[in-house]
Amino acid sequence: MEREHFSRQFDNELNQIREKLLEMGGKVEVMIANAMKSLVERDTELAERTIAFDHEINTLEMVIDEKCLEVLARRQPAARDLRFITLALKIVTDLERIGDQCANICKRARELNQEPALKPYIDLPRMAQAASDMVKEALDAFVRGDDALAIKVCQDDQCVDELNEQIQRELLTFMMGDPKCISRAMKIIQVSKGLERIADHATNIAEMVIFMIKGKDIRHTIA
Amino acid sequence: MEREHFSRQFDNELNQIREKLLEMGGKVEVMIANAMKSLVERDTELAERTIAFDHEINTLEMVIDEKCLEVLARRQPAARDLRFITLALKIVTDLERIGDQCANICKRARELNQEPALKPYIDLPRMAQAASDMVKEALDAFVRGDDALAIKVCQDDQCVDELNEQIQRELLTFMMGDPKCISRAMKIIQVSKGLERIADHATNIAEMVIFMIKGKDIRHTIA
Repeated sequence: MEREHFSRQFDNELNQIREKLLEMGGKVEVMIANAMKSLVERDTELAERTIAFDHEINTLEMVIDEKCLEVLARRQPAARDLRFITLALKIVTDLERIGDQCANICKRARELNQEPALKPYIDLPRMAQAASDMVKEALDAFVRGDDALAIKVCQDDQCVDELNEQIQRELLTFMMGDPKCISRAMKIIQVSKGLERIADHATNIAEMVIFMIKGKDIRHTIA
Repeated sequence: MEREHFSRQFDNELNQIREKLLEMGGKVEVMIANAMKSLVERDTELAERTIAFDHEINTLEMVIDEKCLEVLARRQPAARDLRFITLALKIVTDLERIGDQCANICKRARELNQEPALKPYIDLPRMAQAASDMVKEALDAFVRGDDALAIKVCQDDQCVDELNEQIQRELLTFMMGDPKCISRAMKIIQVSKGLERIADHATNIAEMVIFMIKGKDIRHTIA
């Protein structure tokens, strides 16, 4: 009876970690969407608010870290639960750095919004959506223990990489054609690179999830 | 007696983790130095070897991760030791990604070495040295529990950021002056950005070390 109570409590604590991680993931998705919106709609006020919002992501990182340490210390979990908690510790770091990337994108948007638009943003929003989906799916794969979904995330990373390369090539052409474009084009390249890094973080999470599920490390074997 | 034996064994295991982390750090430092050398001395063969060497960093990441999980499962450490091990788990991820950055720099070096040099590299080697020192000091701070050293690393990050901005400004001037420079300048900017990210990883490690020592989170309060 005592044992059952203990086990129920423990499950509750694991669920709390799971829920907090999903909450953090949800907030990060909103940040990605708002960072892109602040650029596309030239909404500098939204860029400012999104930069300030990063604080909430940072706080959630600390809360989840502490919760994980507390559960490790008090419950001394083994096997699967241990892998789950240590992975949660690594995942929050990736999510926090995605928040940093969003803040960086907003800083570039703030600058770009002060100058005439170089060209309409078409590929960047697509790239942002793809990166955001990857973050969501990587976290879903984690909480559900769904390795097929995690593998899909790793594969999707290539699309984002290709979009990034295509955008960089296009902007290079702009720069070559007119030196007045260079400064703005460089900022847009930084935005594109930021989105690519967000997708990389999602891929890192997915690779770790596959490791957790399969119990062996595919991080450095998947192409 | 039995207890003492257990405790000695446990200390041994913590030392093993410590040593493996320092070994990984040492290899990462070599990678940074070689990445820079392959660029400055236009040594494409060294670039190739350094890219291939990243495999060793990846293997060490897996080895240390597994060791940490094993100690967590078998020893069920508490308090300080628990923080030490969970931090080791996070630090290997940063080290592994520094290895990735070095490989990326080598790929740019490989491309740049095929074209005439745009200009002598003066600031980049300084930046690489600063970033490499930061990695070393962050790890030293971790294994020694030296918060003063960790704080120094966080402060040094600003010098690297400033060097990066200076390099970017200078290359922007090159690009504006001659469109033929743009493609090469962009690659050098990527190298500079890669070094800045390496310094960021070192800073992340240092911030986590301060957290471990002080027991409270300064990650999001240090300017």
